[in-house]
Order: sequence, then C-alpha cells, then structure tokens
Amino acid sequence: MKAFTEMSNEELRALYKELNGKYHEFQSRDLSLNMSRGKPSLEQLNLSMGMMDVLNSESDLSSDDGTDCRNYGVLTGTPEAKELIGDMMEVNPDNIIIYGNSSLNVMFDTISRSMTHGVMGSTPWCKLDKVKFLCPVPGYDRHFAITEYFGIEMINVPMTPTGPDMDLVEKLVSEDDSIKGIWCVPKYANPTGISYSEETVRRFARLKPAAPDFRIYWDNAYGIHHLYDDQQDHLVEILAECKRAGNPDLVYKFSSTSKITFPGSGIASIATSRNNLEDIEKQLKIQTIGHDKVNQLRHVRYFGGIHGMVEHMRRHAEILRPKFEAIQEILTEELGGLEIGRWSNPKGGYFVAFDSMDGCAKRIVAKCKKAGLVMTNAGATYPYGKDPRDSSIRIAPSFPPLDDLKLAMHLFALCVKLVSIEKIVEDRKEAGQE
Amino acid sequence: MKAFTEMSNEELRALYKELNGKYHEFQSRDLSLNMSRGKPSLEQLNLSMGMMDVLNSESDLSSDDGTDCRNYGVLTGTPEAKELIGDMMEVNPDNIIIYGNSSLNVMFDTISRSMTHGVMGSTPWCKLDKVKFLCPVPGYDRHFAITEYFGIEMINVPMTPTGPDMDLVEKLVSEDDSIKGIWCVPKYANPTGISYSEETVRRFARLKPAAPDFRIYWDNAYGIHHLYDDQQDHLVEILAECKRAGNPDLVYKFSSTSKITFPGSGIASIATSRNNLEDIEKQLKIQTIGHDKVNQLRHVRYFGGIHGMVEHMRRHAEILRPKFEAIQEILTEELGGLEIGRWSNPKGGYFVAFDSMDGCAKRIVAKCKKAGLVMTNAGATYPYGKDPRDSSIRIAPSFPPLDDLKLAMHLFALCVKLVSIEKIVEDRKEAGQE
Repeated sequence: MKAFTEMSNEELRALYKELNGKYHEFQSRDLSLNMSRGKPSLEQLNLSMGMMDVLNSESDLSSDDGTDCRNYGVLTGTPEAKELIGDMMEVNPDNIIIYGNSSLNVMFDTISRSMTHGVMGSTPWCKLDKVKFLCPVPGYDRHFAITEYFGIEMINVPMTPTGPDMDLVEKLVSEDDSIKGIWCVPKYANPTGISYSEETVRRFARLKPAAPDFRIYWDNAYGIHHLYDDQQDHLVEILAECKRAGNPDLVYKFSSTSKITFPGSGIASIATSRNNLEDIEKQLKIQTIGHDKVNQLRHVRYFGGIHGMVEHMRRHAEILRPKFEAIQEILTEELGGLEIGRWSNPKGGYFVAFDSMDGCAKRIVAKCKKAGLVMTNAGATYPYGKDPRDSSIRIAPSFPPLDDLKLAMHLFALCVKLVSIEKIVEDRKEAGQE
Repeated sequence: MKAFTEMSNEELRALYKELNGKYHEFQSRDLSLNMSRGKPSLEQLNLSMGMMDVLNSESDLSSDDGTDCRNYGVLTGTPEAKELIGDMMEVNPDNIIIYGNSSLNVMFDTISRSMTHGVMGSTPWCKLDKVKFLCPVPGYDRHFAITEYFGIEMINVPMTPTGPDMDLVEKLVSEDDSIKGIWCVPKYANPTGISYSEETVRRFARLKPAAPDFRIYWDNAYGIHHLYDDQQDHLVEILAECKRAGNPDLVYKFSSTSKITFPGSGIASIATSRNNLEDIEKQLKIQTIGHDKVNQLRHVRYFGGIHGMVEHMRRHAEILRPKFEAIQEILTEELGGLEIGRWSNPKGGYFVAFDSMDGCAKRIVAKCKKAGLVMTNAGATYPYGKDPRDSSIRIAPSFPPLDDLKLAMHLFALCVKLVSIEKIVEDRKEAGQE
C-alpha cells in the first residue's frame, strides 16, 4: 500500500469508508481491552507463586547474621537481601538501602526529603524560589507526577535513540543552579524501550552541574527485564562510572522487584554513594524502625541468589516476547509503508512507543476508547500531560492475554489509520488543497 | 525499712557499703540485659508463626472483591483488611487507609506532607516562621524525634493520671495558632501505661484550636494490648467523639499490627474523617501505586476476623502478664516504703514508668549500664531528650525472658537505692547538714 500522503482525497475517502465499517464492527463487539499500564499478566504472576511456599511455620526466620527478621530493627536491610539486590543492580551491597514494596515511594521520599531538608546540607528546596527538573520526553508519567506535586518546574529534554539529548542536558545543568535533578529510565526506557548508550552514560557521569545538590534520578526499573537471551542491551553501571569520573555523589539509582515477583509485594531499593546514604539514613532512622525483613528473607530464599533471579526472568521473557513480537508484526502488517506512524522495537522492558503524525495522538486514543480499548492517555508521557506535538502514544502489552493483545493492536492500527486520514484531509482543506 | 530521707548519714553510708558490695557482685557476673525498647519477645513472635502457613502456592490470592492482591493497585487497602483493622480500631472501614509495615512511617509522612503541602489547603508549614507541637511528657521518643527532625518546636505538657493536663492543652491550643498538633498515646500510654479518661477524650474532641490545620495525632498503638481479661481500660473512641462534638476533622488516629503479629512485617493504618482522607489521598496516589496487599490478605486470613485477633492478644497477655507482675512485686519488695521512687502499674501496653528522686534518672541508668543492664536513655521520653527534673525512667519488660527480667529488676532497684543514697548525702552536704 502506498503512503497515505501520496493518496488523493478521493482515495482516502474511499479507504476511510471501508475502514470505518471495520471500526463499527469492532464497536459492536463490546470489547473491554486495556493496554494502559505496565502491569504483569496473570500468567506472569503465577510464575512467582512459589514465593508463598518458601517460608512456613517451621522456618527459621533469621538472617545470616542471626537477626530475627520477625522483630523490629535493621534499618537498611538484611545482609543477604543487600547481596541479592546488589547483584541485581550491579552495585556493592554496601551501597544499598532496602525499602518496602515500592521504588516509586522511595523516589517520592527522596524528593520530599530534599524539599524539607535539602541534599547533604544544601538549602531545603522549599526555601528556594524556584526548583527545576529535567524530564527526558517521552518519559514515565509517575515520575513527572512527583515533581509536579512538589511544584517543581519541569523542562522537557528530547529523547534520542541513544538517550536524552546530552548536549542540551550538559548545557542546562551547567548553566542553571535551580536545576536539581533529571528523571531517567536508562534501560529499556519507559516508554521508548531504548537503552542509554555507553557515551550517554559516560557523559551523565561527567556532568558539571551548577547546583551542588543536583542529582541524577536513575530509575533502573527494567535492568534485568530482557526479552531475549541473545539480544540484550548493555548499560554502563552508573555508580561506578560516576566514581571513576570523580563524581561519586552525583546519582541516586532506584530499583525494585515489582516486575520480578509480585508488583504489590516486592522489595525496593536505592543504591548510591556512602555520602548520600549517610544523608538519607539521617531521615530514614526517624521515619521508620525498619522495612519488612520477612519479605526480604522470602525473596532471598526463593531465588537463592542472582542466578535464580535471572532464570526467573527468562520465564517472564517467554511470556512477554510473543506479545512484543506480535506488536511488531501487526504494526508492520497494518501500517508498514503508510508513513503515518513510527514505533520502537525494544529488546526488553514493558513498553513500545508509537509516534503518530503530529496532532493525532489524542484522537487515536479517544477513538480506541470508544471501541473498548483503553490506552495510556495521550500526553501522559510528558510533563503536565502536554505532548507539544500530540504524537506520542505508549503501548503497554504485558497485561492482556496474547489473543486480546493481537485484537487490541489491530483495533489500534485501525484507529491510527482512520485518524490519520481525517488529519490529512483536514490539513489539505486548511491549506486550500480541497 | 524506713524512708531513706529519714535515715542518718551514718546509716545511709553503712547501707551504701552493703549495697555496693551487691552491685559489684552483679558487675562480676558479666550480664547482658536489655530493657530499652518495646520489642516483643521470641516467645511472643512464635505465637504468630502460623502467619507463614496461611498462604501457599495453591492459595487464591484474590480479595473478596476479586482484586488480585499480587498485582499493582488498590491504593487504600483491600476491603477485608479495612474491615479487620476497622474492627481493631473501632472505626468504620470507610474511614481507613491501610499502609505498609510501620505506623511510625505513616506519622512521619503525615508531618512531612503538612510541611510541604499543609493540611486541607492550609499554608505549608515550611512556609511558616514557627510551627509548634504539644508533647505530653513523658511520652514516646520516636514521636518527638519526628517533630524535632522537621524543626517543629515542642512544648511539654505534663501527664496526669487521666491523661495530659487538659486545662493547659485547651489554653495553649486556643491561644496560639502556630500550635499545629499534639502527640498522644491515649491507651496504656508510652511510657506511663495510663489510659486517657472519658473526660479527657471528650475535652480533646471539643478543643477549639486557633489553627484550622491543628490536628490531634492519636497513636493508639496499644488499643487491644490488655494484660487481663477482667481488668481492661476503656478508651472513648475519638473519631466518633469528634464527630459528635462537631469537630469531625480534628484527629488523625494511627495504629498497626506491629505488636500483634510480627513487628517488622505488620500492617499499619490511619483512621480519620473523609475530608482528611481525601486530603491524604492526594499525596498517596503520587507517592505509591499501593501497599503490600498480599500481607493484608495474610493478616485477614490468619485472624479470620476481630475475634481471632482478640484471642491472639490473650496469648500475648499470658506471656507479658507475669513480667509486668514481676516488676510490681520486685519494686514493691525492694523499694516499698523507701520513698525514693514511684512507678506505674498499667493494665496493658508495653511499659512501666518509674519516677526516681529528682536529679537521679541519668545516674541510675548509667549505673545499670555499668553492670550490664541497658535501659532506655534517661530523658528519652522528653522532647530534645531533656527531662527537666531528671527523674523519669522507662521500663520495657517485654523482650527479656522472665528470669532475665527479674534479675534486671533487682539490679535496677539496687541502682535506684545506690544513686538515691548518693543524692541524699550530696544534698545534705550542699545544705550544710554534713
């Protein structure tokens, strides 16, 4: 099929009529499909049911150092949980604090602490006239929601195939001391699926921020979430790289087991320099007596080490891979050559990013919804929900069963086509080409 | 034995010599006893080992409303967890949010949110010149640590046998709009063990604070932690009382299962008015996707309802009761009639408060430590660690086994006697009575 923009209005109208008939067929099927969030599927959840058998009433619930995990105490996590998560995050266990079930909560608390107490002795951000964050776009809506909640001004930084536009990041960060951070999902990024290149990470580690309390918020949510054994992105480890660059305190690295075991019942963590950890622990010891150590023990004993976790992730991949491949097949089959959209082809993570023609994303998502398919809100992947080109749509394939996903993707492609035709015809009309 | 103050210096010196010999005997035994924190004992922890058998890989991990507890979502807790905790807290489940494992963390977050975002639209506290809290003393050190961490000025309010001095509370709260809260442990209080009287609670519910963002921080940590079936303190339920008094938004009530199941792995909660909950949820939905619902399910299924929980608490009481009774026996036997100390006799909770002669608490605790007995730091139960009379000592009998506890109490009483003699002799010297 030829590109839509090369078709005459007449051809487009004929095609629209045909496609619209198909759309009404979809509507009449009363569908209820959801590709809006990066939630593991039931099949994936079932992979971790063995977690429930690991501990029983006969178990010794002590950690290796003799700590009774049932009782109060152990502020920063048990030694063996730190070892497991250290292996997962590729950092020294001594650089880790283990938290509760949510890395989002850890990030929120990190910003909140900076608001009330600053960073390593800096002025609390709530005392400053202006605090700004850099936000690579498209990005993760829940990151942006945190900075918005605290009244932090967000500045868009375009994503490239190798990560954020580092020329721009370097320039802004070195010039403006009200810029206190940047949100990053460096591997299998949400939503583009790309991983930051070696050069990008090296440039991050060598940033010269004007603000001494500037930190990189490195949310490595998909560090071991590969789709393939033989095609995996490799990310340079940022803590080590910052240390080598003489910037040891520059980064907070976040992670969790939410998409490894149970999303509601995993363990989250932060990895950072000892200086930063000491700063954080001043808050942490006031905030809590300790996190859930029994759940730490459950994770440690279930996996028996990083190898067990890696094998577990291969089983997740077996479930996710066909879904990601179906997306590529269907989009190529339905939209290939039409020049009305581009999409990413990630080798891991939870998302595919779709770029429609400018000014079409909201209408596509709305049209999907009218036929029973819920996508992530268009614009959600931008600060303040505002995608300036209105073209970015996040596809989250993990939750629906494969057959539902295929159906959803055909419907999605159909909506892309319909809205694109509408847009092309409108644009021509506006330009007097009608 | 007659009161120490009625003994001559000569008598006191002779007695001191004898007691000091006993003290050296204790020292030579190389003891390692700890009565510093309100931690459940191993025996108590063992009561809840059945928790580990409640869920297994064959279990349906869905809540009553069909929610898959393994996955993301359900911000405020599952319906059945709210019902259980509602019964425990004596409030409507609709007035509850279930959190993670730590009610201290909930309290911290409550203050932190007020600092950055105010309370129901009020000016964020971090924008105010001065924020103050009332602190009934002696009280819970970790409460005071939170307000100190946020730079909130703490004002001591004396505890009476019926609760805080309400004349003073009413006066201060109505006059000073920089007073934003009061810390309360209303039942089996930490450390006095007393429960607030009906009149006290009614007066709390009828406070007329100058500050619209004033809240009562009602930490009902020991709500069902009775020592006896037949002698239980009854506390008027504060949410209902506030509602009746026309002050529905006046109170945040906190609770957790930390001293019911496993201290590190329980579930915590807040109960408050719908207005307050809506205010809190604006933050919560940014902070997290949800707390650990599998652990909520574990608690619900283990207890099967409030009756199961109450029966469980009776088993805790069987372990704790002999310890509390031993304290009374030993203190009465060792110190009765000497007029060098008074102590509380609570019917529940985790603590006994001991009042030494003025100016003796620090020295008593130091003397205990030198013989291998760690007590809570003297002064810890006061804001900034400053007990103006230096007389308050917290006894935490739960953790050590009964025999250790008895030994510890004899040692403690011995130290009280030694330090009291030192003090009396010093005072007489200073007054020229030597």
